[in-house]
Amino acid sequence: MTAPGWIRIVGIGPGPAEWTTPEALAVVEAADDLVGYAPYLDRVESAHHRRHASDNREEIARARHALDLAAEGAGVAVISGGDPGIFAMAAAVMEALETADHDRWAGVDVGVVPGLSALQAVAARAGAPLGNDFCALSLSDNLKPWSLIQRRLRLAAEADFAIALYNPISRSRPWQLGAALELLREVRATDTPVVLGTAVGRGESEQLVLTTLGEADPEWADMRTLLIIGASTSRFLAGPEGRRRVYTPRWHEGLE
Amino acid sequence: MTAPGWIRIVGIGPGPAEWTTPEALAVVEAADDLVGYAPYLDRVESAHHRRHASDNREEIARARHALDLAAEGAGVAVISGGDPGIFAMAAAVMEALETADHDRWAGVDVGVVPGLSALQAVAARAGAPLGNDFCALSLSDNLKPWSLIQRRLRLAAEADFAIALYNPISRSRPWQLGAALELLREVRATDTPVVLGTAVGRGESEQLVLTTLGEADPEWADMRTLLIIGASTSRFLAGPEGRRRVYTPRWHEGLE
Repeated sequence: MTAPGWIRIVGIGPGPAEWTTPEALAVVEAADDLVGYAPYLDRVESAHHRRHASDNREEIARARHALDLAAEGAGVAVISGGDPGIFAMAAAVMEALETADHDRWAGVDVGVVPGLSALQAVAARAGAPLGNDFCALSLSDNLKPWSLIQRRLRLAAEADFAIALYNPISRSRPWQLGAALELLREVRATDTPVVLGTAVGRGESEQLVLTTLGEADPEWADMRTLLIIGASTSRFLAGPEGRRRVYTPRWHEGLE
Repeated sequence: MTAPGWIRIVGIGPGPAEWTTPEALAVVEAADDLVGYAPYLDRVESAHHRRHASDNREEIARARHALDLAAEGAGVAVISGGDPGIFAMAAAVMEALETADHDRWAGVDVGVVPGLSALQAVAARAGAPLGNDFCALSLSDNLKPWSLIQRRLRLAAEADFAIALYNPISRSRPWQLGAALELLREVRATDTPVVLGTAVGRGESEQLVLTTLGEADPEWADMRTLLIIGASTSRFLAGPEGRRRVYTPRWHEGLE
């Protein structure tokens, strides 16, 4: 019998190497096996790994496969884009652990290696739209009912959080972003700043759009887009070099 | 007249060098001047910089000073712990830009360099407590009214977000965390998992407490603590190596 190995769910960040932490690099380097969604694996350069690429929709199968490899004694890095703890693979591995035969994976050492998430990349490019209280919400209704998403959007708007929207749109979910923007327009002013960051950090495909809730068009988003809807205090700002930004002040009126 | 310089608000992450991105390191290295709260500056090793350490409460003065240095032609790194866009210096620099004499800073190139934030570090250590929708809220009422914090906490609990609490307690704000926990107990079950991560990433001073909303005691937190209050679906999980974790599944009942 082999001694059990280890598994790390590793966040490599939103794209470029300059946003991948030394810890993530070191853990990937130390691993025998890399498991992950194919485009994320493609971002990791290496010669010595066994590579196990999978489709985006097979998170649980991917998690089980990684745990099986670790149980056989391997060091396994599950490669996650962004931060594995934010709408990514860490929860999927925990789900696999919860619902499965524990004896098979007994002794496997499990850990999570954090990474920069898309909301941080887009916020940094835009200015400081998340400079005050905020929430992060996935618009995907693959795993949760749309009614819950609507309820959370409405309460988040009433709470006056800046709102980061993950998974806004895809071929199989074409209408959800439009419906979300409509709902938010009922609660928040149409001149609220909105940021659409697409493929941020990925070179020439990067796009940043600063607009308003009234103007924002779902057509401007794709699978690689993260949106930030401002709070009531969020505002546009012309920088000293003439560039426009969005930021949310830390203070509130009456307490300056 | 000197050509104007640049300013970058740089996130060095929660503590250890292995969590600082290559981009942050490179920008710090390229800077002439480092500006920041003294304990953050202490984390940056370098011989060639001019260092401008300041007190924690002087964010706007610090931002103006950094902009003045850049206007004189310097490359200036404003050092922020965690992510500068999340309850940190990026919004303070934008506020300084908004409220000040623009001519003085004309031409200064302004940018934000993202970093890992405390919520990511604590979530990674705990498992995957932020694996579904979540919000991040500062309990500091220095810059916003306590009534707004109460309102946001209540709506966040009703929306069933996992809740990350920044700035939970300090010598000058001793009662706010207790009041927040009391309020959350009115809306969310007392067996809701709660994580308290203190000085996570900072070696031997790191502490991680997994508890419940009913049991959580403000005495277990200090200035270096980030709390995560679970959603209604958050749960404890025994890992294969016997370690207990907290995670929030991506799915909701009825949609499995």
